[in-house]
Amino acid sequence: MEDQPSSKPNPPYYDIGKPVTYPQFESKLTLLLVIVGAGPVGLTLSTCLARLGYKIKHIDNRAEATPTGRADGIQPRSLDFLRNMGLKSAIMKNKPARVYEVAFWDPATAGKGVIRTGTWASCPAFIDARYPFTTLLHQGLIERAFISDLKENGVEIKRPWKIAGFTSDEKVNPEYPVEVNLEHVDGTNRETVRAKYLFSGEGARSFVREQLGIGITHKDPIAHVWGVMDGVVKTDFPDIRMKCTIHSDHGSIMVIPRENNMVRLYIQIASSTDPDWHPRKTATIEQVQASAKKILQPYSIEWESVDWYSVYPIGQGISDRYTLDHRVFLGGDACHTHSPKAGQGMNTAFLDAQNLAWKIHAVEAGFADRALLKTYEPERKEVAENLLSFDNKYAKLFSERRPAATEVQAASKHTNGSSNDNEFIKTFKESCEFTSGYGVAYGPNALNWSPDHPAQSHLIHPKGTKLRTGRLMANADVTRVVDANVVHLEQEIPWNGSFRIYIFAGKPSVTATALKDLASHLGGKRSFFGSYLRADIDSVSHFERYNPHSLFFTICTIFAATRPEIEISRDLPGLLARYRDLVYADDRWDRRVPDAKAAAHAKMGVDEEKGGVVVVRPDGYVGIVISLVEGSGTIDALNAYFNAFCAKKTGDSRAQL
Amino acid sequence: MEDQPSSKPNPPYYDIGKPVTYPQFESKLTLLLVIVGAGPVGLTLSTCLARLGYKIKHIDNRAEATPTGRADGIQPRSLDFLRNMGLKSAIMKNKPARVYEVAFWDPATAGKGVIRTGTWASCPAFIDARYPFTTLLHQGLIERAFISDLKENGVEIKRPWKIAGFTSDEKVNPEYPVEVNLEHVDGTNRETVRAKYLFSGEGARSFVREQLGIGITHKDPIAHVWGVMDGVVKTDFPDIRMKCTIHSDHGSIMVIPRENNMVRLYIQIASSTDPDWHPRKTATIEQVQASAKKILQPYSIEWESVDWYSVYPIGQGISDRYTLDHRVFLGGDACHTHSPKAGQGMNTAFLDAQNLAWKIHAVEAGFADRALLKTYEPERKEVAENLLSFDNKYAKLFSERRPAATEVQAASKHTNGSSNDNEFIKTFKESCEFTSGYGVAYGPNALNWSPDHPAQSHLIHPKGTKLRTGRLMANADVTRVVDANVVHLEQEIPWNGSFRIYIFAGKPSVTATALKDLASHLGGKRSFFGSYLRADIDSVSHFERYNPHSLFFTICTIFAATRPEIEISRDLPGLLARYRDLVYADDRWDRRVPDAKAAAHAKMGVDEEKGGVVVVRPDGYVGIVISLVEGSGTIDALNAYFNAFCAKKTGDSRAQL
Repeated sequence: MEDQPSSKPNPPYYDIGKPVTYPQFESKLTLLLVIVGAGPVGLTLSTCLARLGYKIKHIDNRAEATPTGRADGIQPRSLDFLRNMGLKSAIMKNKPARVYEVAFWDPATAGKGVIRTGTWASCPAFIDARYPFTTLLHQGLIERAFISDLKENGVEIKRPWKIAGFTSDEKVNPEYPVEVNLEHVDGTNRETVRAKYLFSGEGARSFVREQLGIGITHKDPIAHVWGVMDGVVKTDFPDIRMKCTIHSDHGSIMVIPRENNMVRLYIQIASSTDPDWHPRKTATIEQVQASAKKILQPYSIEWESVDWYSVYPIGQGISDRYTLDHRVFLGGDACHTHSPKAGQGMNTAFLDAQNLAWKIHAVEAGFADRALLKTYEPERKEVAENLLSFDNKYAKLFSERRPAATEVQAASKHTNGSSNDNEFIKTFKESCEFTSGYGVAYGPNALNWSPDHPAQSHLIHPKGTKLRTGRLMANADVTRVVDANVVHLEQEIPWNGSFRIYIFAGKPSVTATALKDLASHLGGKRSFFGSYLRADIDSVSHFERYNPHSLFFTICTIFAATRPEIEISRDLPGLLARYRDLVYADDRWDRRVPDAKAAAHAKMGVDEEKGGVVVVRPDGYVGIVISLVEGSGTIDALNAYFNAFCAKKTGDSRAQL
Repeated sequence: MEDQPSSKPNPPYYDIGKPVTYPQFESKLTLLLVIVGAGPVGLTLSTCLARLGYKIKHIDNRAEATPTGRADGIQPRSLDFLRNMGLKSAIMKNKPARVYEVAFWDPATAGKGVIRTGTWASCPAFIDARYPFTTLLHQGLIERAFISDLKENGVEIKRPWKIAGFTSDEKVNPEYPVEVNLEHVDGTNRETVRAKYLFSGEGARSFVREQLGIGITHKDPIAHVWGVMDGVVKTDFPDIRMKCTIHSDHGSIMVIPRENNMVRLYIQIASSTDPDWHPRKTATIEQVQASAKKILQPYSIEWESVDWYSVYPIGQGISDRYTLDHRVFLGGDACHTHSPKAGQGMNTAFLDAQNLAWKIHAVEAGFADRALLKTYEPERKEVAENLLSFDNKYAKLFSERRPAATEVQAASKHTNGSSNDNEFIKTFKESCEFTSGYGVAYGPNALNWSPDHPAQSHLIHPKGTKLRTGRLMANADVTRVVDANVVHLEQEIPWNGSFRIYIFAGKPSVTATALKDLASHLGGKRSFFGSYLRADIDSVSHFERYNPHSLFFTICTIFAATRPEIEISRDLPGLLARYRDLVYADDRWDRRVPDAKAAAHAKMGVDEEKGGVVVVRPDGYVGIVISLVEGSGTIDALNAYFNAFCAKKTGDSRAQL
């Protein structure tokens, strides 16, 4: 594992757009998967896997990327995700609108038009978000960031092409069971390709889903027809730059600010509860504008331009399955459709894709059992189901009674919950967590430890642990030791398909032996770590930050000490010291734990003296938390955890999924 | 002043790259100025003026922009400036290195090589900086951000062209007194142009300065020859990612981390105190590398590549004049040269240019007396002189005695100064303020109020005011009322050549009448504001954020209230309400004033109940602070202040500069 001088330096470490070299497996030389649809879900999957060097065939039936309109809301947690993908600045340079608060407007008494009845934070202070706002810009600008990144990694979307048919049979070809027939939309050209996987990111009307005969379950039997209009307006309505839900005697409207001084209006044109309901009911631009004028009284509104207008029927629905054979998968709108009010479509799509991407990678790179793919559907389907349930519950609560301003204020406060919370406040909080993206909680399985997991040790989830398995690691500011930069710990490892091992190392004087023991066991050939060393380990550049030893693990060490107290070469054994760029001082004050000596340790609930090890999945969700102890206890628990899903087994444990 | 509907929307408000339309004056139709040299100072001047729509001839004698090397350090305050210019993200996308701390290394006892003797913050916590770090990337990447912005505003640098001669005589042509002879460097082409101004941003060997016969005064008689090398190294030196000053028995070296895993080494090759001193003394790459190896012992260092290498003699010097006739100006290295250790060259250049830019604009747009231009030299020359004095004083203090670690720790603490500070700590603090860029303090003149200023009123600089004239306004987070976005108040007005009127409006219930009175007086035709209304005021787009009434003023209002308490149409009179995008709630907690009810008010030292008016120059420096009172007291003081330098006079005051 010694560093060797290399003839020329690696690409700069931060340039995470460059594919990692994976010499152990050759999946990237052959076609890994066919992706149908270049909306958010397809593009995310493509980008995640192209970064890791896989070969992808990606088609879309539109002649070009979304020019205007469509989805537009990026939730707080999605911005974390985009930053982790290195795409945040490419998106933010479009100067999107940022929604920090939502305003509610209702009929004034005596037919005097609407009045504001309340406002509240879209991501209240009780949620510890780096970016406590919704980012709004049209889907095309978001897609472009992905498309340009894909181009750098050698993937071009083939347009306008569509899928004409497919088969999937491991008996015919166990390695490449999927055969896909593609054709140009005008029928002038055809192509048949063979791949390991097929992914449908086709949207609500998925050809693949239909072919598989997978049904849709509608949570809410009521369907709606919505009109949506992006444009530039002149108005004296004071909250035109805020997200607003407006109920009036003349109908309802939702206002959403946009990039370039634009505003989006959603108007409900018809509902299946209407006596004259027809899902094809429509309305002209002029009709929608006339409705908006009436609804916004006593305020005036005039259109200066209309950028995009669309009318579409939509109902809440969830696909019954996300895959049948773990070769052909669905994601995004092909799996779940919501009312646009939830603003969740694109955000759920991002995370569907990321969830699937690292699992495909782990299986194809020889790291995990194929059974790992079975966790995609339950994890992501539950998220969609919870989302729709909350949406329903919350909407119902709202239609039943209007919350008092004091209730909303109480709910928005920065507290960790209180037994005094009434039903409305509880639902509001849960709803905010869900819509912000921080409410996702994957249930117990091989990845997300629970008392039923095969890994059993008194060191697992020690008393005080605040992290919850299946949920995101808490964010924390720390100081990087090598360059004294203040950084966001949770963002220090970019998307690289690796498990993230965070060693909270407590006080150096207390944990010296435990760290030495852990490093020595990690280095052992039969450890979860030593079993997956790089084949090219002797020729890895000394600039490699994240994967100097293994392509499947990146290790961070965080000491509960100030930066000048830490000397990497003295305080860390060689194996851990090699990750010198990922060694941190937990010496930044945090307002959420104002009295903590080591705020990051405190936020995770890790002992500030003795430390602890946090294993985070490649997508940022906590897998397991283990005490850091002298001897082999820590490594034994780690081995047992990874044994539950890794392809190579250590010790006596058996895989169970 | 009523808003009128316009047929199509303005460019998006945030797109500050688009020139403002200045229909009142036609300077932009004819050639305003010739700029010689496209380094930082020339590019900044060009960019500032091109943004405002002026016509510029800009030449450079190099065939292309800096490809590698040269200046590289952007100080914290310069990053504020670049952000205000809308150029920060274009520069930061190059992923520069960030220096938060400086490490000092000295000889260990008994010839055992070097050891670290201390580290400290490059921008310690007592400085309230948004970006408390130095940003490092090569000059070419910085220049490119400016060049691409210039291109958008119709300015192309003419290359490789040089200046062959010039004359400046208001008797020959009072409007366009400057005639400049330009020629292609290979002599194949010539051109003579006539302009209002000529600017030399030629660097230390300025042809213009020589032609004017302006001498250089050397503060420090000692000259040095420096070798500087950018490259990629392999080393076990632990602080290779920090800025380091290393003294060893084999010589001295300075280490500066760079973008792309590079590192810059500065090595002093010769000093005029050497017995064999010769300013043309040089050294090969190999010699410098061999020196570095010796100096860094016991650590090893190997070069993997060298990106740039240069040897140059340099001394501290300041040009005796920055202009002779206020038509031909010098700036940047043409005016002041420092040792590279100070890392100040480019930063001083940015601010030289910005200082001159708004003054030329104010004069040419008919806003200010021509005498305003006389403030350029004294303001900027004093900054350069102070900088060199501090550099000398600090360096001397260091060479005399090594500071104890406790001294440095004490100096780095977040305090507002204490009478117990010893000489070293005092000098350290002042030095940090200077090198961070926050130490600039322009002396009293017509722009920077002092008790000697013609404006006299008991309302000026009331008790408690923390802002100091001639210094930057304090930074503060506030909540924008229209969209609930949390923003940096000091960045809310981008560079637009306008004076910034910050109305700290205290409690709405307390200041209602004072605001009404102020607005009513501002609207008066003889006020400093009413005297400079736009000629096209009736056709200004309702999206115009910054200059709906006057091209010379932008008004912000900040209430000491929470956002939901503020209703713009109710709490602000019409004139002030028109700046609806620049109305804020002072409702954000600030760690520096933890007990304040209204942190922004408290940081400025403005009464939290009664408010106050802060006038900030177009370059961000405080001009005057005035109490906000009912009646005409506030407007009288404002009128008196602007009377001191404005072209149109109100009341009986006379201009005095």
